[in-house]
Parts: sequence; structure tokens; C-alpha cells
Amino acid sequence: MNHRFACATPAMRSLPLTRREAAGLGLAFLAAPAAQAQKGAAEPTVARWGVHEIVLKGPSVGEPFDVALSAVFTDGKASLTVRGFYDGDGTYRLRFSPPTEGLWRWRTVSPVAALNGKTGAVTALAPRPGDHGPLRVAGGYHFAHADGTPFRQVGTTAYAWAQQSDALCDQTLATLKASPFNKVRMCVFPNVAAEPIFPFEKRGDGWDLDRLNPAYFRRLEDRVRRLGALGIQADLILFHPYDDKSGWHAMTAARDDRYVRYMVARFAAFSNVWWSLANEWDLVKAKTAADFERIGQLIRRDDPYRRLCSIHNWRELYDNGRPWISHASIQNGAAVLDDTRAELLRSVWKKPVIYDEVRYEGDIDKRWGDLTPEGMVERFWHGLVAGTYVGHGEIYKGDDGWTAKGGRLHGQSTPRLAFLKAVMEAGPTPGFEPIDKWWDQHLGGAAGSYYLRYFGEAALTQWAVSLPKDGLTGGERFRVEVLDTWAMTVTPIDGAFVMAKQDAYFLHDPNRPTVALPGRPWMAVRVTRV
Amino acid sequence: MNHRFACATPAMRSLPLTRREAAGLGLAFLAAPAAQAQKGAAEPTVARWGVHEIVLKGPSVGEPFDVALSAVFTDGKASLTVRGFYDGDGTYRLRFSPPTEGLWRWRTVSPVAALNGKTGAVTALAPRPGDHGPLRVAGGYHFAHADGTPFRQVGTTAYAWAQQSDALCDQTLATLKASPFNKVRMCVFPNVAAEPIFPFEKRGDGWDLDRLNPAYFRRLEDRVRRLGALGIQADLILFHPYDDKSGWHAMTAARDDRYVRYMVARFAAFSNVWWSLANEWDLVKAKTAADFERIGQLIRRDDPYRRLCSIHNWRELYDNGRPWISHASIQNGAAVLDDTRAELLRSVWKKPVIYDEVRYEGDIDKRWGDLTPEGMVERFWHGLVAGTYVGHGEIYKGDDGWTAKGGRLHGQSTPRLAFLKAVMEAGPTPGFEPIDKWWDQHLGGAAGSYYLRYFGEAALTQWAVSLPKDGLTGGERFRVEVLDTWAMTVTPIDGAFVMAKQDAYFLHDPNRPTVALPGRPWMAVRVTRV
Repeated sequence: MNHRFACATPAMRSLPLTRREAAGLGLAFLAAPAAQAQKGAAEPTVARWGVHEIVLKGPSVGEPFDVALSAVFTDGKASLTVRGFYDGDGTYRLRFSPPTEGLWRWRTVSPVAALNGKTGAVTALAPRPGDHGPLRVAGGYHFAHADGTPFRQVGTTAYAWAQQSDALCDQTLATLKASPFNKVRMCVFPNVAAEPIFPFEKRGDGWDLDRLNPAYFRRLEDRVRRLGALGIQADLILFHPYDDKSGWHAMTAARDDRYVRYMVARFAAFSNVWWSLANEWDLVKAKTAADFERIGQLIRRDDPYRRLCSIHNWRELYDNGRPWISHASIQNGAAVLDDTRAELLRSVWKKPVIYDEVRYEGDIDKRWGDLTPEGMVERFWHGLVAGTYVGHGEIYKGDDGWTAKGGRLHGQSTPRLAFLKAVMEAGPTPGFEPIDKWWDQHLGGAAGSYYLRYFGEAALTQWAVSLPKDGLTGGERFRVEVLDTWAMTVTPIDGAFVMAKQDAYFLHDPNRPTVALPGRPWMAVRVTRV
Repeated sequence: MNHRFACATPAMRSLPLTRREAAGLGLAFLAAPAAQAQKGAAEPTVARWGVHEIVLKGPSVGEPFDVALSAVFTDGKASLTVRGFYDGDGTYRLRFSPPTEGLWRWRTVSPVAALNGKTGAVTALAPRPGDHGPLRVAGGYHFAHADGTPFRQVGTTAYAWAQQSDALCDQTLATLKASPFNKVRMCVFPNVAAEPIFPFEKRGDGWDLDRLNPAYFRRLEDRVRRLGALGIQADLILFHPYDDKSGWHAMTAARDDRYVRYMVARFAAFSNVWWSLANEWDLVKAKTAADFERIGQLIRRDDPYRRLCSIHNWRELYDNGRPWISHASIQNGAAVLDDTRAELLRSVWKKPVIYDEVRYEGDIDKRWGDLTPEGMVERFWHGLVAGTYVGHGEIYKGDDGWTAKGGRLHGQSTPRLAFLKAVMEAGPTPGFEPIDKWWDQHLGGAAGSYYLRYFGEAALTQWAVSLPKDGLTGGERFRVEVLDTWAMTVTPIDGAFVMAKQDAYFLHDPNRPTVALPGRPWMAVRVTRV
């Protein structure tokens, strides 16, 4: 691991700047009373968590992608440093997403005179209706929006959807809108055939890797904005091993850093952006763990909003304990076949765990793409009981494949995942916890008030309603429901289950110690305190 | 985590000292030719990996436990700094275990004149017959002796055996000698009733925590030496939460450090010593993870031999990625019920994993002590297939309990663990690897040459001999044996299984794709290349 940036100053200050401090930073203008700075002109406004953009004109010759440009924004209490980026044709942009309402003043810093010392202000108003703000880790293992609304991750993967034709992108967005999915893993560099527009300027048969192509990123940005309008998170995969011909996975460190810095400058202000450093990092043979550590630290420095950040593995788990990693993004074909397995990684890293790749629903002759719809849904339920999250994918023959290019979904898991999401949303906040873990209970929820047991393919005819003693003293009343996770039905059991001591470790209702099950697979039982 | 010692110089140098360097360190004597230093006297000798002891007389008043004393040993190539300890009555000892054969010169350093500047030499001869040397991590996930002999960990737990009567200790050692166990987890401070001799000097109703009791440690040392003579590793548990009355788990940091430094000075030279910072570290409420980090760093600095070092958890996993931790020592009642679960922690930390506490065989009314013998044995087999290691324990009613005080074993798991150990020893070197992990294969061994499948309580009548393609190209011949892990039998299947492509992922013998099983639980199949 490379720790060279471990002592870097965070880009965001949470303490108010004093006037003296502001002056010391060359930010004397920030200390001026608001009335003086306004000069009588109406200040621009932006919704809290929206994007305010500052456009400046600067040099178009030389190395515009290497021009340093940033702006310090402050509301007198917090201070954020936002980096600018070059958008072609002599246009430079700075994007700011206000974390709080109120007046935010800014001033630019650049060695280029035309871009330096520009000042202004923007007033952040109430958020747009329905906007709950960007995501943060909540309760250690879960996610919530900035306003506290829980976020129940039900992800999907559509690697190169954003690089397809406008018509196909429209279809993908329509599919997502009608789906339960609230996060899409998506590549910046496409991993399959895509429209002939590229992230770097063409040069001969290849690319000038020192020249980014703003039009390419503008197109990607449009997709990210439209996902945001649907309330869907964009988990942007910065590198992957599947561009052998382009070599974009094997650039120099300086070029990697320029590209990543550009991505952060351009996209970080969108509140639905997540960073995924890589898909299958350990297959990106041109990079080491230390390279990804450097890139992770760079994002941590440059992104003033601390968007969620992860790195996805093939066979070698990255050290997800690193401080720049907000949550583990795991590929494992088998871990979520058992909640007790899935839980272990949570206990190791003490962070949210998303099993982003658990095989895809489909019928191709690769084992990563031949999962039955039942198997896809099963993994989500085991992951839920474990207190973790799972990602969907779909790839059927005779189709370009949702997980490759987006488009339409053909599988049968999607409606079942909508049913699962409804169960998640009606469950504990901010998320499900494993109950009496490491004792093979296979119970998730909230000890004392909510218990979910999932049986997978086991076709049981009854289940003992025995609840571990944590959070219970006896006398508590519960209602019990039988969930058919495939048929998407909830069948309440009449009457209450009243808890009494069963033995040293469990409570149950001695008058009705079991509940009948229908002898079919894919069943679950939900036990809720009344 | 506390990183304050992260830049400490390791106590052992692997590069030769030049004469100039030795002189610069005040070790000019070390640069003198051997013939001059010998002065015609016969040098003492010691077996390689044995213990050479230097006895010095020094102050018995004041604070003898705080007297700094060390010796630098060098053979002209490597240099080791060994700390001395006070053994009462004005006697100070330094113990040295030569890592290589040859002449080792030494010189003491102490601020106390009577202990400073003493010099001498010792010749390390060939190791005692059968001594393979101390253990190291081998192959990333396993253990081997210094001479390369694999060490197949089959551990047990007898927390306070060493603090019992001499007669009971004798019985414990006799039991161990007749058992498969090659490692014992054992407390320095007893966690149950024990002989009335204590690690600290008595003061009134309590202890003078600034005064260690050398007689106590001398007695413990006797037990460690006798384990060593049996070839059994002593996993010394430095702290645990179960001494509420004594308060030894809740001393000041300075006293903890003095005690730990004393343990390292006194015991590190014994080549069968392992360090376990704590039993259930997260229940030692008087200490934080940062305290254990400080203690782990102290051991790393003070122990010139880098003995194996771990820290055992209750419900909260320690960050076993820390560099001073050689292997994970895990308590988890359910992880080794499934090799795919057990394997995950290996993949996280990329170190050996020992599931040291997986519930104990017994019949007490606590769930940690009511495991059937079958359940005990089952956990070892799943752990083996996972490429991990497991620990045994036993506690039956009407007995003080092996795991508490040692003595006799009453359970039925022990002979089955001897059978398991024989299978381990006949298996891949240095140990078993999970095969095609994360695809739910439940195969351990060495891809291409050795496969072990264990069925637990499933009572199957046949198994498909399908081998994942890694390491196979077709045409390989295998013999197949059916193991009854409970009856301790090995039943060979006649003839060879000749591998041919089965599908994109597996090979098998199309003429005999399955092997018959007897429909009993606790069976395994061993597939070995011929």
C-alpha cells in the first residue's frame, strides 16, 4: 500500500473560518459582509444538493487538461475546495453542489491569470421536491441519504449502457425507471462494442492519451444526470481489464491521475455519483494494489463531497479496510448462498458490504452467466438476512445482454427484487442486522422487534418460532407472516405469538411453538413486534 | 489503532555487520577475530534452536524488574538483540536460541555497571535429534518448521492447566503425549481456580502489581519446556477478561508493558512459544484495540525470533491484517460448519487462519460447551477443506473439564482428530488449498494432484467425481478412496479414474463418473493423482 498521501489535508473543513483565517488563506473577500459582496446584483440560486456551474474562458492551446484551477466555496462555516475542468473550446467549468442551504461565496485560484481570482456567490435554496440528498454510510453497515432517509440498495449492472446509441440509452433509462433498481454499476471506458466516440482524442490508429475528449464525458454526464433524475445512483467504474485494444487500463500513473482528477472535477458535484476504482482490480495486470491505493487517495483528496467509493475484485479481495473505501464491493459466486457466509466480510471490515457480482441471471454457456432467476433472487434474500446488499445482472442468449449494453430486461428476477425491496423498506432502519451472529441462526432484522428468516430452496412444512434472547425479556407479542418470495405473497398467521422463556438462549410461544410452511422452496418468515 | 511504533527498528538484522559498524555500535569486541576472543577457554555449546542461558548477578534492591539489560548476539552475519530478565535473589538471566549453527559472540548492555559490558560466546551445534526448529508461516496460509518440515496444526485448549498441581500437570502432559494435539492454548494468568501461587507479589489482600513473582513464571516455564520436549506448541495467552478479582486484565499501560516485556525476555527463547495477546480481546473492557496494538508492537520489537503471534476474539474481529499478527486466531461457533464460510477470512487477511474456538465438545448447559463429538470432528474437516485450521476443546459435567484445567480427556473426538491429522500429513505440502474457491465446490487439496471432499452429516449414496479444470488437461489418472471420518477407515475404490473433459469447467472419467458412498454421515472422498 502506498501511504504517501496519508497526511494530506482534507479538502473540506467543517469548522467556520474566522475573518483572520480567511485573510490568511488569501480569501479576504470571503470575510467581507454579504451585502458588500453582492453589489446590488441578484445572486444566482441553486437547490441544495443540486449543481451550480461556473463557466470561465481560458487558454485553448498548450495543455489545457493540465491547467490547475480550483475554487474555494464557503458559507462562513464550512469551506470546500472544488476543482475545475476543461470542457474544450477554451471553456473551463467549476461545479459546486451545496451541502447546506444559504449563501456560498467563492473565489478561484489558478496560475493562469484569466482563471485566477474570479469571485462570486450562489444561494442554495431548499432541495428539489423528493431529493433526499447524497448518500452516506449509516449505522456502520448501511446507507442513508443526507436528510436521513434510508437507502435500500438494490443494484444492477449494465457495464457499457451509457456508451450505446441514444435510442438504446433511452430504452435503458425507461427500463430502469420501471424497475426496483436504485444503483447501476457502469463503466466509464466501455468493455463491449459501443458508439464510435472515445474518451481520448484519436491519433492515427490509436489515441493521444494526454488529450481527453470532452464530448465523450459530456455524453456520459448526460446519462448520469438522467439517472439522477430517476433517483438512481451511478456507480462509475474508472478502470477495468477489458480494453486490451485501447490500452486505457495500462496508462502511465500520470495519465491515470489526470483522467481520475478530470472525472472527479467533472462528476463529483452530481449527488448520485459513486466511485468504483475498478471492476476486477486484480485482473488489471498493469496496475498493482499500490496504484489503486494512490488513485483512492487522490479521489479522497479531490472529492470535496466524499462520495461513496469502492473497488471491486475478481479472485483477490482488496483491503477494504482502507480509509478511502466507504464500502466493500465484492465479486463472489457463492458467498451469498448463505447469510452466515455473507455476514463474515461485514464483521471483518465493519463497513457496508455490497455483493455486487454474484453471477448473472441468464442462459449463456459461462458459469458467471447461467444463473436461474430463482438463484438470482435467492442471493438477494440471503444477503439481506446477513445485513449486506446484493447486485443483479442479466445476460440471455439472443440478446446483447442487459449487463453488457442495457436495453430491455428479459429475466424473471426483477419483479421479485421489487418485492424484496418492499420488504426491505418496511423493515428496520437504516437496515437489517444479523441476529445472534456466529451461532447459525440465519436471522436478520433488529433484535427484539423484527426477525426475518429465509429458507432458500429448502421446502419446509414448519418452522420453530424460537427467537434468540437478545432484546427480549418475555411477554412481547409478535405477528408472524409467511412470505413466498417467488410468488410475491405475504400470508399473515392469525393471532399473536407471545414470547416466554424456552431455554437459556431462546424465547418462544409455548402455546404455538411452530408455524406451518407450505412445503415449497423460496419461502421466508417475517416476525414483527406488535 | 496506535501506530506510534511503526518506525521502530527491528531487533534482528539479517545483514552482516562490518567491523566499522560493530565498532560504531560499541561492539568492537565483535569485530575481533574469534581466536583472540576465545582466550584458550573451551566455549560453551548449545544445540541449534535450543536455549543458551547467561546468568549474571546484579542488584536485588530498588526496582530490579525495571533494570534495563540486553545482549547483542552475532555470528558475524546476523545480529540479534536479546533482553534479559530478573529472576529474583539478585539473579539476572539472558536467554538465547541460536537460529543457525556456528559461533555466536555476545556482549551485554545495561546502565547497571555489574550487568554491563559482559562478553562471551557460545557455539551452536546441530539441532537435537527430531528438533525441526521453530515455526514460521509457510505458503502464505500454513506453517512449517525452520527446517521446512510442515506443521499440521491440530490444536487444543487447556486454559489453566499449567497452574494446577504438579500431579495434575503430569497427567495433562501424559494425556497430550498420547493425543494428536500439537498446540495448546494456555493462559499465563489462570482463568479458573488454581494453585496458590501468583504472578505478582502479594500485598495485603491483593498484589503489588509492580513486583512480578519469578517463582510463578519459573513454574510456568517448566510446563512450557516439557511441552517442547513433547514437540507441542505453547500458545501463551497474555491477557483474558476472566480475572475480575485480581484485576490483572486492567493494569496500567506501564504495568502491562513491564509484564509483557518480562514474558518475552523470559520465554521467547523457547522455540515452541507462540504469543496470543488475549483470549476474547473485545471482552477485556479495560483495554482498547489501540492498547493491544501497542502490546503487539512491543512484542514485535522485543522478540528477536518473531514467534507466531495472534489475538483471539469474542464477537469483534481484530484487524488481523496488522503486520505483527502472524495468523488469525478466531472464535466463531458457525464459520467452520462450511468450508466456503471458513475460507473467506483466509482470503481477506492472506494469512493462516486458525479457528481456535468453535465450541467445545461436552455436555454442559452452555451452548459453547455442548457440542457433540461428531460436531467437534466435523468442524476440523470443514476447516481442513477450507485451507484453515481448527482448535479442539472439551468440557463434560462431573469433571473439572479438560479445557479448564487439563487432566484427562473423556470425549470421543480425540482419536478421530488423530485420524484427521494422519490425512493432513499424507496430504499436500505445506497444507491444503481451497480449490476453485467461491464456486461452492467444497474441495480442498492441491489443484491437479489432490482433492478432498467432505460431506459432513449428509448421508449420500454417491458422489460425482468431477474435478475443476485448474491443473488438469485430461488423461490424468487418479485413485479414489472413501474415508469414514468417524469410523476412521479408508476404503480404496478399485482401479483408476482417468480424466477427460466433462464440460467447460470440469473433467471426469466418462466411464465411471461417480463413486458410491455408504449412505452414512461423516464421510469424505480423497482423490489422489497416481
